[in-house]
Amino acid sequence: MQLHPVPGLPEIGPGDDLASLVAERVDLDSGILCLASTVVSKAEGRIAALDEFPAGPRAREIAARLEERTDEEKDPRFAQAVLEESTDLLMESPFLLTETRFGHICVNAGIDRSNTGGEDLLLLPKHPSESAARVSEALSVPVIVTDTCGRPFRHGQRGVAIGWAGTPASRDWRGESDRDGRELGVTVENVIDELAAAANLVAGEGDGGVPAVVVEDFEFGEMDGSDEHFRDVEDDYVRQALRGWSYE
Amino acid sequence: MQLHPVPGLPEIGPGDDLASLVAERVDLDSGILCLASTVVSKAEGRIAALDEFPAGPRAREIAARLEERTDEEKDPRFAQAVLEESTDLLMESPFLLTETRFGHICVNAGIDRSNTGGEDLLLLPKHPSESAARVSEALSVPVIVTDTCGRPFRHGQRGVAIGWAGTPASRDWRGESDRDGRELGVTVENVIDELAAAANLVAGEGDGGVPAVVVEDFEFGEMDGSDEHFRDVEDDYVRQALRGWSYE
Repeated sequence: MQLHPVPGLPEIGPGDDLASLVAERVDLDSGILCLASTVVSKAEGRIAALDEFPAGPRAREIAARLEERTDEEKDPRFAQAVLEESTDLLMESPFLLTETRFGHICVNAGIDRSNTGGEDLLLLPKHPSESAARVSEALSVPVIVTDTCGRPFRHGQRGVAIGWAGTPASRDWRGESDRDGRELGVTVENVIDELAAAANLVAGEGDGGVPAVVVEDFEFGEMDGSDEHFRDVEDDYVRQALRGWSYE
Repeated sequence: MQLHPVPGLPEIGPGDDLASLVAERVDLDSGILCLASTVVSKAEGRIAALDEFPAGPRAREIAARLEERTDEEKDPRFAQAVLEESTDLLMESPFLLTETRFGHICVNAGIDRSNTGGEDLLLLPKHPSESAARVSEALSVPVIVTDTCGRPFRHGQRGVAIGWAGTPASRDWRGESDRDGRELGVTVENVIDELAAAANLVAGEGDGGVPAVVVEDFEFGEMDGSDEHFRDVEDDYVRQALRGWSYE
């Protein structure tokens, strides 16, 4: 398996055709294209000014509580933007842990205040798998839209997939045997998250960051694929535990 | 960045010298070696029989509750083994979510019942970073000991690092600028988990699985490194929420 960054992409703006910009720079006969959500969002015009989110009572309450808890200034308009991009708030303090409209759980609905191209806010793509599908159809290769986010239990951020097209999300090893001939106990491998993590190692961050990475010579193998990716609350016991919990 | 499996490793048993077995098969002038915890455990004799774990009252109680909840037979000796390998139980039902002695949070203390080399149980290495350090010193390259495990919010398993030597755990981007010249907000990238995820894509599972993968041409970059990896409970709000929660 090899990964290489797509060289020389310009700063992306609303209406830019990502598929063409990538195709002009790399030969994509095969491989998987990993695109940072930042450039997908910019191409789709998902930049916004804080003034577009006049804060309602709930956003003001959330921002006031966060200010008190964190001793940092919090803009209620930012809280309003997070609320409008979310379908569920899993935690309201000491930070906002949200479920986005497409099922991704992350802090602040994934709204970015760095690398926003001069605007206040960069929102996540509205439907990242639809964005992936458009690029995938244009280029005839699988496409993964990636983000970086933190997680419970382990320090630091890592790359994850928030949208995908042209590849299953997971390899399903159920029914495969172990080396001793017994059926494998643990058996669904989230391939798109692993590909996003690998791409993030090559992409970097900040002003030297590269928002598109090509993965070559990855073999999915003969096993079945699955498109389950974001857990439902019914089978997510950690998420159930967060209900009703509040940080003191 | 390139990843390739180490070809032709034999079945590993107690006392085997993993460093030599790898060095005989690949040229390791540079690169990072990712070793599946299964082979590290086997080389270190971390196989065990269920009879070595006569169940005490707490293990019997846990197994009985799990049987009731899951409608599956649960061996109280297995619950005993999990308790002995753990320093904390974050959840007792519908599965055992544990903290291992070295700080890793996973189901069943990472005890494996597949690919155990004929024994009942394969325990995780006792000190995976010390195991990594021994192999790293012998081969003069960084070494990561990997495992696969599930996580909240997202379906499926992915590769993670449980031990490392010769490389920092994370890249610290704090102080770096974004493309607009502002300081990056989100800034610690867990590199060893991303490398473990990438290696897992190449390693596979089951009877065709390869337990050692070499990563080449990965550039850590100029930023600082950090060795924070497993979160402490004090800064892990999700873990705090699990305290006192119980599955009905």
